Amino acid sequence: MSPPPNALYCQAGGVTAVINATAAAVIETCRGHPDRIGKVFAGSNGILGVLAEDLIDTSYETAETLRALRHTPGGAFGSARFRLGSFEADRRTWDRLHAVFAAHDIRYVFYNGGNGSADTARSLAQFRERFDYPITCVHVPKTVDNDLAVTDCSPGFGSAAKYLAVSLREAAADVASMVASSTKVFILEAMGRHAGWMVAAMGLAADADHHPPHLLLFAEIPFDPADFLARVHASVERFGYCVIGASEGLSDGSGRPVSALPGPHPGEEQFGGVAPYLAHLVHDRLGYKCHWATADYLQRAARHLASATDLAHAEAVGRAAVDFALDGHNGTMPVIVRESDNPYRWRIGMADLDSVATLERRLPHEFIAADRCHITPACRTYLRPLVTGESWPPFRDGLPIHAHLTNHRTPRRLPPWHSP
Amino acid sequence: MSPPPNALYCQAGGVTAVINATAAAVIETCRGHPDRIGKVFAGSNGILGVLAEDLIDTSYETAETLRALRHTPGGAFGSARFRLGSFEADRRTWDRLHAVFAAHDIRYVFYNGGNGSADTARSLAQFRERFDYPITCVHVPKTVDNDLAVTDCSPGFGSAAKYLAVSLREAAADVASMVASSTKVFILEAMGRHAGWMVAAMGLAADADHHPPHLLLFAEIPFDPADFLARVHASVERFGYCVIGASEGLSDGSGRPVSALPGPHPGEEQFGGVAPYLAHLVHDRLGYKCHWATADYLQRAARHLASATDLAHAEAVGRAAVDFALDGHNGTMPVIVRESDNPYRWRIGMADLDSVATLERRLPHEFIAADRCHITPACRTYLRPLVTGESWPPFRDGLPIHAHLTNHRTPRRLPPWHSP
Repeated sequence: MSPPPNALYCQAGGVTAVINATAAAVIETCRGHPDRIGKVFAGSNGILGVLAEDLIDTSYETAETLRALRHTPGGAFGSARFRLGSFEADRRTWDRLHAVFAAHDIRYVFYNGGNGSADTARSLAQFRERFDYPITCVHVPKTVDNDLAVTDCSPGFGSAAKYLAVSLREAAADVASMVASSTKVFILEAMGRHAGWMVAAMGLAADADHHPPHLLLFAEIPFDPADFLARVHASVERFGYCVIGASEGLSDGSGRPVSALPGPHPGEEQFGGVAPYLAHLVHDRLGYKCHWATADYLQRAARHLASATDLAHAEAVGRAAVDFALDGHNGTMPVIVRESDNPYRWRIGMADLDSVATLERRLPHEFIAADRCHITPACRTYLRPLVTGESWPPFRDGLPIHAHLTNHRTPRRLPPWHSP
Repeated sequence: MSPPPNALYCQAGGVTAVINATAAAVIETCRGHPDRIGKVFAGSNGILGVLAEDLIDTSYETAETLRALRHTPGGAFGSARFRLGSFEADRRTWDRLHAVFAAHDIRYVFYNGGNGSADTARSLAQFRERFDYPITCVHVPKTVDNDLAVTDCSPGFGSAAKYLAVSLREAAADVASMVASSTKVFILEAMGRHAGWMVAAMGLAADADHHPPHLLLFAEIPFDPADFLARVHASVERFGYCVIGASEGLSDGSGRPVSALPGPHPGEEQFGGVAPYLAHLVHDRLGYKCHWATADYLQRAARHLASATDLAHAEAVGRAAVDFALDGHNGTMPVIVRESDNPYRWRIGMADLDSVATLERRLPHEFIAADRCHITPACRTYLRPLVTGESWPPFRDGLPIHAHLTNHRTPRRLPPWHSP
């Protein structure tokens, strides 16, 4: 009897506080089917490692290490920003992937990513027709941006949302105590690109009307400096201070980013810098002392403050992905289906990747208040369960313990790869 | 029999994640001596509220609210950046303070602050001689900067240090997973002004040689762009990435801040902005994709990640301050005395304010490694117990619960005050 075929797990795009919990769930679930799945390989740095035939043999990782992945942020096997071109345009790359799959008898692919990755996963699912190769590819959702279509939310978002809401509430308590003689305006910048989910999450910090944040700047609302300054002034006059949550993707009416550095590749935006821009503006025009924070990777890496709900989602999509694959559901993605808000109830559903890939789920209009700088009760109802529950990692000497993998490489069988 | 005299508690300077734990300890300890201490007033916004005769009567706060202060960041009664001038130069202010103390029979003052505040507390201790008024003033230490003299550490620092070390370790795990196709350099900027304690704390994130941070930029070491860029390049070549912890107070050889905004008052520096400056420099000169974070108030407000050791210190200095006052130790400050590193043992000692006020405790040279960009084992031994232990606050709906005070004002007895 021939040994069962192997599986491949890849992390793709920006990582999250709980993507390794998904990784652990995928690997553990595969281990539960030794008759159907042999080894689980992980691409070192995702699909780049597949192309380079740089495959991590996860069978060398102990059950204890896999459990530790549950409380380890980042992408344990390395991730990649990569988009597979069309079969016609990128044929050499498709051929190489096919060769690596065949060389290592990889017939299950679990591609753990966001929007762009879903498109690549959809391409991998086509290897069945393109090469008559028996692949089953399941996309496993993750993104702090929460902009994946079909699913009620994306694993990774709940923890980043919790981090932002908690951080804003804590920092606002600090600012409130300094207003008499020092800082009057505080700005916290959130990731999330052009989607305002992360900004909306900061709205949860307010547990009563007029509590901070006093002003949310959504990527969806064109930035108007005069209107902004008027609102900041009004908040300082009324409350003594103004706490602001701002999107890194803030742009003016023409779609020009308020503050964007040129990225490393032509035409690629790199976000970050909206908060200092706004602080300078407020200081110059209104004369208020400002403080600002740009949490950047801290907000998507803060496993110490992960949402227990988010962690449960991250594990569930990992387990479901393996079940989907074993049931032959090629080109699908497990999604979170919300059954009720309060009490919060959810289940795993199945989406076809054609209904997911390249779509962007924006913050609904009904989640932004009429004043365009707060969230609505409906938004609060949506967000609350996603940030609920704590899952503290173990600590040693005051710091969280992270998994350390052996990352044992499997021997190469193919000639070296040179990217086109 | 006349009622016992009253006490005053003031928060001063930048607040911390645990200053309210000190406040609770002061008030609770005073309540334990109803025969010796009547009411405990808190200055609304610290000494500014005393001058304005805007006094909070803390007897309206329940025992439950005081317990909740233990897990509430910021300064619950408001703080102030204020420095009392000399008796001769600032006589009108001294007279006003004397009038408020006398009008409300305030004979105990607990002044909870850092370096500048210790000087003001020392002045208040002189009211005994200047006005023949029976004041007993005790300075209660707090500062995230850890730059108070005599004490082994300052309450507030351990929690901020823990926040920075944890955040850097988590963000480094994120960066490490992105290096193949995206971010190669990450910079986390720390507060701490010209003292490098907070930067040193980020060094704790490494639990083995060559683990991140790869580079610490201490305020104590003059910044040399060419040397910096060479080290970043070497780190990326060797490890694939470079994680950097940088001081907000970074300056060049002549003491000129690398990046400092003009503050709201002439001659006053406002920090923040070193990280984006460094990111631009690296991107421009080396072409690496950079991410950066400036945690700002998040690092001193992160009560959710407070160090249990720090919290214990914060409560102990509050209790000791009341004991010192009742024993008549005017012009003193409780300090943390370290008795052993491992196991960590400490006790409360007493310092004379003359030995504390206006002194700045710098990071010792022997805590900075020979390569000038890492910490030494001695530094690690010093820091480790200060960040050890967790003290999670209670959460509701995914967010930490903070105390909400009644902040009941006591009736005024004096004419209004107009500051000079």
